[in-house]
Amino acid sequence: MTELRIDGIGVSEGIRLAPAYVYRPAAVSSGQQEEARQFIDSSQVEAEIAKLGEARERCAAELEALTEKAKVSVGEEQAGIVAGQRKLLDDPAFYPKMEARIREQHETAEAAVAEVIRAVAALFEGMKNAYMQERAADIRDIGGRLLACLSPEQSRGLADIRGQVILVADDLTPSDTVQLDPAVVAGFITRTGGATSHTAILARSLGIAAIVGAGGAIDGIEDGDPLVLDGSAGLCIARPSEQTTAEYSRRMGLDLERQKSLEAYAAQPAVTADGTRVELAANIGAAAEAEAALRLGADGVGLFRTEFLFMHAKELPGEQEQYRAYLEAAQLMDGRPVIIRTMDIGGDKELPYLELPKEANPFLGYRAIRIGLSRPELLKTQLRAVLRASAFSTMKVMFPMISGLDEWRQAKAILAKARLELEQEGVDFDRNMEVGIMVEIPSTAVMAGLFAQEVDFFSIGTNDLVQYTLAVDRMNEHVAYLYDYFHPAVLHLIRNVIEASHHAGKWTGMCGGMAGDPLAAPLLLGLGLDEWSMEAGRLSRTKETLSRLDRGACRRLAEDVLRLDTPAAVRQALKDFAAVE
Amino acid sequence: MTELRIDGIGVSEGIRLAPAYVYRPAAVSSGQQEEARQFIDSSQVEAEIAKLGEARERCAAELEALTEKAKVSVGEEQAGIVAGQRKLLDDPAFYPKMEARIREQHETAEAAVAEVIRAVAALFEGMKNAYMQERAADIRDIGGRLLACLSPEQSRGLADIRGQVILVADDLTPSDTVQLDPAVVAGFITRTGGATSHTAILARSLGIAAIVGAGGAIDGIEDGDPLVLDGSAGLCIARPSEQTTAEYSRRMGLDLERQKSLEAYAAQPAVTADGTRVELAANIGAAAEAEAALRLGADGVGLFRTEFLFMHAKELPGEQEQYRAYLEAAQLMDGRPVIIRTMDIGGDKELPYLELPKEANPFLGYRAIRIGLSRPELLKTQLRAVLRASAFSTMKVMFPMISGLDEWRQAKAILAKARLELEQEGVDFDRNMEVGIMVEIPSTAVMAGLFAQEVDFFSIGTNDLVQYTLAVDRMNEHVAYLYDYFHPAVLHLIRNVIEASHHAGKWTGMCGGMAGDPLAAPLLLGLGLDEWSMEAGRLSRTKETLSRLDRGACRRLAEDVLRLDTPAAVRQALKDFAAVE
Repeated sequence: MTELRIDGIGVSEGIRLAPAYVYRPAAVSSGQQEEARQFIDSSQVEAEIAKLGEARERCAAELEALTEKAKVSVGEEQAGIVAGQRKLLDDPAFYPKMEARIREQHETAEAAVAEVIRAVAALFEGMKNAYMQERAADIRDIGGRLLACLSPEQSRGLADIRGQVILVADDLTPSDTVQLDPAVVAGFITRTGGATSHTAILARSLGIAAIVGAGGAIDGIEDGDPLVLDGSAGLCIARPSEQTTAEYSRRMGLDLERQKSLEAYAAQPAVTADGTRVELAANIGAAAEAEAALRLGADGVGLFRTEFLFMHAKELPGEQEQYRAYLEAAQLMDGRPVIIRTMDIGGDKELPYLELPKEANPFLGYRAIRIGLSRPELLKTQLRAVLRASAFSTMKVMFPMISGLDEWRQAKAILAKARLELEQEGVDFDRNMEVGIMVEIPSTAVMAGLFAQEVDFFSIGTNDLVQYTLAVDRMNEHVAYLYDYFHPAVLHLIRNVIEASHHAGKWTGMCGGMAGDPLAAPLLLGLGLDEWSMEAGRLSRTKETLSRLDRGACRRLAEDVLRLDTPAAVRQALKDFAAVE
Repeated sequence: MTELRIDGIGVSEGIRLAPAYVYRPAAVSSGQQEEARQFIDSSQVEAEIAKLGEARERCAAELEALTEKAKVSVGEEQAGIVAGQRKLLDDPAFYPKMEARIREQHETAEAAVAEVIRAVAALFEGMKNAYMQERAADIRDIGGRLLACLSPEQSRGLADIRGQVILVADDLTPSDTVQLDPAVVAGFITRTGGATSHTAILARSLGIAAIVGAGGAIDGIEDGDPLVLDGSAGLCIARPSEQTTAEYSRRMGLDLERQKSLEAYAAQPAVTADGTRVELAANIGAAAEAEAALRLGADGVGLFRTEFLFMHAKELPGEQEQYRAYLEAAQLMDGRPVIIRTMDIGGDKELPYLELPKEANPFLGYRAIRIGLSRPELLKTQLRAVLRASAFSTMKVMFPMISGLDEWRQAKAILAKARLELEQEGVDFDRNMEVGIMVEIPSTAVMAGLFAQEVDFFSIGTNDLVQYTLAVDRMNEHVAYLYDYFHPAVLHLIRNVIEASHHAGKWTGMCGGMAGDPLAAPLLLGLGLDEWSMEAGRLSRTKETLSRLDRGACRRLAEDVLRLDTPAAVRQALKDFAAVE
């Protein structure tokens, strides 16, 4: 047996050694081959329809359980991907048509499912539109699941895997991925897929090492083959030699050691080499996540993404329900400050019961504060809930997607109304609660000087700020290469925001992906960022990085970097700095 | 008969007096009512299929003619809207299914068309996705046209209207609107529709006064009723009194007089009250449009949108074809300078033979220079064509959607390669041809200082710059209210670009919608804008406005305005200034 080395796109880091498990799901084929149609006798029609009905219910129950599981394993945001698939099952274009085929054409349930799914999927694919083609993939995913539910004994399901394995598959749907148990599935490698897919995001959230887009080379892997998977390098080695195995075992050990040593930082505050205390906070999507945030060493919650309260409800959550969630987060944080961001619905986040419009460019559309200002009752209810929680713990509130001073003033007016109401009702709240804005639209970064006169704080959302500043949708694989928070224009805007806030005696936080990037840390420290908010899992590594940094040196670095002209030059300067430190 | 006053959204200005023509097109109903299905005898199948085939060909010919007509009447860009509908006719989801229904179920051609269109449209609508719902509207539009082609004698077509009328309709599709003859249809009012629809854009291009979104009130208009339509005020008066008629006749006369006096400016250069000569150029989408540009008094072409050369071809236009088009424009401009913008495909502009990806947010996607840099042969061919034309006339070239210095340098490298090739081939070109960039992405406006060291000129594309700076898709009716080039952040970016160019001894033009807005003129003059490029129809009015402006006063105005904090405050200051002038 010789080693087989397979290159792919590494999408989730980590080194893993385990036997291969080759996964072949039940699926609706997309090809032209004609399956033998199976027909039933007219006397069997009702029984066949009942069978289909049961499969549909089983399928729905599976998806609902999967959604609940996903909320815990990968967080509320990612769970929405699976919940969306559940909705398809109720679409009038599918199930009633399957029933009709059984009743009218006496097809078996399997044939009826296969035919309807194939026809609908083909129609969408024929339309040459990404939205429709993605929908076609969803339709096939649901179809495969329905077929599996029709004959559960035949399919070799992901839930049945035992031991520890590395999964080898043509492709994994998001609903496949979300049900993977990291204790069982140490990693996976797939034939297709790209770096920005939902599957890749889910793998990172689950901590499963992963390679996608490995192509036909995976056909050389046999079920049970020993595998080495290096998710950082995008390399998989099947049937490794003893030497290879030893080398990767050693590297895996080093990784684990590093992980351990990082964990020690959780209990310590973030302090730089020159003794500066830095405020590190966590981003959370549900009150329960505050527990892990505190355990992993957060000084507070820098971003509570409240939209998930809204997205996982069947109707608008009321004031009382919101109040409890905000207070619960504050209590789990042991009284440390919690920043509530008012709901950022829209864009890529749907909310069925609000009946939001579908848009040609949702990222440039009706979302976040734009919804809140056009439906002030919605925003006011949320602000009342935050204010009430502020009577018992340190709460702050900030508005997302503010693009101009008038929007900020309108939002403040709604807040003033909420305060007035509570006062009239004799309900207590913190009269000094800080109120800020997200800086994620270029106009607001440009106008930071005027905003700083009126807001209590800024929180820079780098993900959206970069997208708009560079006119790049980072989820779009054709232009994702342009998405870079080290672009000099982005850095100039960040500097402008921080300086404007300090000039007015205010403070600036950051809650986008940049805040948790160790390479960015010296630059952000040098620019004077006051509060860093990130996924809780990144806190320890950031504390370790900060512990090695000197503020004076970082200030000089920032000055130098702000004179550079390309993202590549900035990245190189930061790498050089990190190497010297 | 009492007057009936109807309010709506005025989308195309102008006062018109004419009788009502109530338009009820043949259409595929979207409701649930079941039409009596008509069946044919099996002997009639082939005849019925032949009939459908003829209707399809008639329909295709109509749409092709309409596209050609649209190119002349509303310009190349708008014509693309109709051309897109033509493509639907060839979609495998439609026509073959209609044939199959005739052959297999012995339906009449009418019934088959109606059934297929209804089923496909309903499917798309059921999916709750704007892309699909828009597609459903397109499908219905095509369906109505196919039905009309099947029984041409029954439908009361827009092309049959005689005399001068004001059209009253539930809605007008873009393909309806583009076939309107302004000599016959003086204006229209519709029940539905919004300010940013394609129909509204087409009405303005055609010079047809128009009101949309007037609601149920239009049911009070009878065919033949005398109507007054005021497109600026969004007011329609049915059965006007003698007094009303007299009043609007007088106003219409004033409008016409004003129009006449403006025409006198065409032959004169643009000069301010203090004697400053301003360079006014025209935006064109095809070489032939240069003729009108020169006649209407343009000093040059500030923007040649070359993508229409590509969009209306069946395959990539070759170097020779492009060279001829660029040279033709220059010759029609009598040697005045012509600025070629390399193709801005993508976003909302499709190019079937390039097989561009469909995207979730096309405005933040793979478009313009991003395509040119990833397919350098395409860009090089275009640059060779421009360089060759530069041997005979003053040509300049600029790159669209530049977001960073590295993209600019890559584009310059491709230009250098094109020059080297021509040199080696002994082909002549202008070695001093100016090379610039569009400033339409916030990052580039922020970094203008560094860019100014390397480019020969800037051209500010306000439409995109505003969209990205404010994160607003101006075609999205739910957020279009935020789209405003008077937003202070946009003004600061514009000032930064102009100042950076002057500091480096370069110049700045503007080719977005703002350049042709009389309200913006004093501000742009005060900011020191060097070249103004606009639709040729706006040149005279801009010259008239400039003739009343003093540069010193405008500079002071600009200083004051740049201190304001909201678009409303800016707009008010500009209105106050215009009132005093």
